[in-house]
Amino acid sequence: MGKGALTRERIVGRAVQLASTDGITGLTLGRLADSIGMSKSGLFAHFRSKEELQLQVLQAAIAQFQEFVVRPAQAAPSGEERFRVVAERWIAWADTREEMPGGCLFMQAGAELDDQPGPVRDMLTDAKRRWNETLTAYARSAVRRGAFREDVDPALFAFQFEAIILGAGHFHRLLNDPRAFAHARASIDALLASARRTPH
Amino acid sequence: MGKGALTRERIVGRAVQLASTDGITGLTLGRLADSIGMSKSGLFAHFRSKEELQLQVLQAAIAQFQEFVVRPAQAAPSGEERFRVVAERWIAWADTREEMPGGCLFMQAGAELDDQPGPVRDMLTDAKRRWNETLTAYARSAVRRGAFREDVDPALFAFQFEAIILGAGHFHRLLNDPRAFAHARASIDALLASARRTPH
Repeated sequence: MGKGALTRERIVGRAVQLASTDGITGLTLGRLADSIGMSKSGLFAHFRSKEELQLQVLQAAIAQFQEFVVRPAQAAPSGEERFRVVAERWIAWADTREEMPGGCLFMQAGAELDDQPGPVRDMLTDAKRRWNETLTAYARSAVRRGAFREDVDPALFAFQFEAIILGAGHFHRLLNDPRAFAHARASIDALLASARRTPH
Repeated sequence: MGKGALTRERIVGRAVQLASTDGITGLTLGRLADSIGMSKSGLFAHFRSKEELQLQVLQAAIAQFQEFVVRPAQAAPSGEERFRVVAERWIAWADTREEMPGGCLFMQAGAELDDQPGPVRDMLTDAKRRWNETLTAYARSAVRRGAFREDVDPALFAFQFEAIILGAGHFHRLLNDPRAFAHARASIDALLASARRTPH
């Protein structure tokens, strides 16, 4: 990787941080330039438009999520254990971190973009759909392998699982509720217990 | 109510519609003026600043929620029946309606404002906290009256209930998932069944 590529990576990382607090629609070349002390024309060499910047930021955030949540999940044994890994990693992801000081970029961007058709919204919804399909496939596999009861609906399970994490992010970020993550963990426990084939 | 008051009400109603699609931080006196064909200086007679406009919009949305969701809930019998009324009214509220063509203003505003301290965020979080406390009180009352099991944690129940509705809004608005509300209803059913003292 040349010097240019490294610099671009650093710029995108800073843009991800900015977008997590100001929103991805609030992210402009001008604001990013101010924040990193670079000229707007210098930034134009990397991103030709606000939209290209937003797409790069979203792509970088998706790659971070892959590393932070999806890869450890894939490495975990199928069934309940895998869902516990997803829950822990996803809660850690939604917590305030240096890489995303404003909390999960996707939750923020979801609310911003739901009424704004275009390539940025498309990239976000595609990634969200793929992740939902992945969770559904995990649940389907847990049913097939006998870890979950046969009457568990994998798509409904994935909805319930995701709703709990969304709720945790919401209560944590907006209401500063100190019990947000404890409530999420207890809800995940209850959901897994309700799906489990044999109580243990 | 004089002519001035009615006009102001109509303006705020239009501003609520705009804010539900563009976001409450995207709502400016200029955009509102364009949208209702009124001069910006005419609007200044009603709202002295963008912030005052946003506060009025949020207050109007909170009053709409009171009428649409809270009042029918208060009128319902305590216990499971009350939670079913809340769920149905709240799902209808989160659905696309003429008054909020962009979906629930609060979900949108929550993601926008979580990193923007100030009176607008304070009004939103106060209203959200009061609503969460109301749901917690409903659950506590259901436990006391014997409708819910004694080991049901009212605050956890309220978290789980709210997470399901948040999830429904998210899947409906962002992913256009046609099963969003069906999944939410099935999740509410499962949650109520898990809290119920005697299965019936």
